[in-house]
Amino acid sequence: MAHTEESRQKLREICRVAARVFYEKGYDGASMQEIASAVGLTKAGLYHHVESKDHLLYEIMNYGMDILQEAVLDKVSQIADPLEKLRQTMIGHIDLIVRARDLEITVILHENRSLKGALRKKINARKRDYIRFLEDLIAAVQTQRGGPPRVAPQVAAFALLGMINWLYQWYQPDGAIKQEEIATQYADFFFRGLLGTS
Amino acid sequence: MAHTEESRQKLREICRVAARVFYEKGYDGASMQEIASAVGLTKAGLYHHVESKDHLLYEIMNYGMDILQEAVLDKVSQIADPLEKLRQTMIGHIDLIVRARDLEITVILHENRSLKGALRKKINARKRDYIRFLEDLIAAVQTQRGGPPRVAPQVAAFALLGMINWLYQWYQPDGAIKQEEIATQYADFFFRGLLGTS
Repeated sequence: MAHTEESRQKLREICRVAARVFYEKGYDGASMQEIASAVGLTKAGLYHHVESKDHLLYEIMNYGMDILQEAVLDKVSQIADPLEKLRQTMIGHIDLIVRARDLEITVILHENRSLKGALRKKINARKRDYIRFLEDLIAAVQTQRGGPPRVAPQVAAFALLGMINWLYQWYQPDGAIKQEEIATQYADFFFRGLLGTS
Repeated sequence: MAHTEESRQKLREICRVAARVFYEKGYDGASMQEIASAVGLTKAGLYHHVESKDHLLYEIMNYGMDILQEAVLDKVSQIADPLEKLRQTMIGHIDLIVRARDLEITVILHENRSLKGALRKKINARKRDYIRFLEDLIAAVQTQRGGPPRVAPQVAAFALLGMINWLYQWYQPDGAIKQEEIATQYADFFFRGLLGTS
């Protein structure tokens, strides 16, 4: 269908609901009929918006990457200092995982291997772009600091992603550790690890 | 059935094969019939070893925790110095994820929410024991070093687990970064983050 603003909003709504169904039943355990019912559409109505279950999973992941782009990356794009830019990227990404706890994101984390072929390649390309963005920023921070780098940018980038993406496994919104505290402690921890300063 | 050594070995074999089937088809997408065929048993034969699909998932996760215990925790139990003990725990855990790449472990990481009720509680209790072990070690390292701790032991423990458990998402055995390099860079990065030294 044509990508009018209205159809885009409808697709996003479908993605949010479908992500919840996939989350509860697993990608393989959920049927398109169940998802249609949960959205309040007929099965034919659902297929009007997405051509297959594969494409639906792809659209959810794509939506997750859109959220990262809009809520984090667009906001830091004007920051010139690489260290501050990286710190704000971390804090924004943590915010995304911890506060909103978008289930779509969790589905991205979990169901990546459910997606096959060309759609998987497209999503992986978007993920790789983000990883490269982090690696480049990390290398820029290391260059700015001077001296021999203490860790390969690629290893540091994946340490950062692991720290943040694992949050959903343990973070309790009503637990003892508050979100701002985690963001600050994580960012400080990361930069000490990266640069070796206290 | 009685837990003879023979039955225990058979159960482990079933777990390894079933983990691969769950990995490929998802927990909800795989049937007990498929798993029985993959192990070379009849369905009745499979049910002789595990009473349900739930219990099979539980046994796989339990096996994953057994591997952690035997291959990592038992080996560091005699190390007295907390920093060295924590470093060897990290390196052992990385080794587990990176080298053996046991699919059971990946299933544990991914399918936790597929397990319900009492079985889930039992596995989560084992996971919590490991987290508490890490937190206590981290606190001991901080105390040994002296001065105010730079990060809460709980936050550091989850940073460590995120860094390591995320490895399976990106590590390529034939990639540019070799396993020993990752283990060393990760451990050094972690201790700089924890202690603030270079």
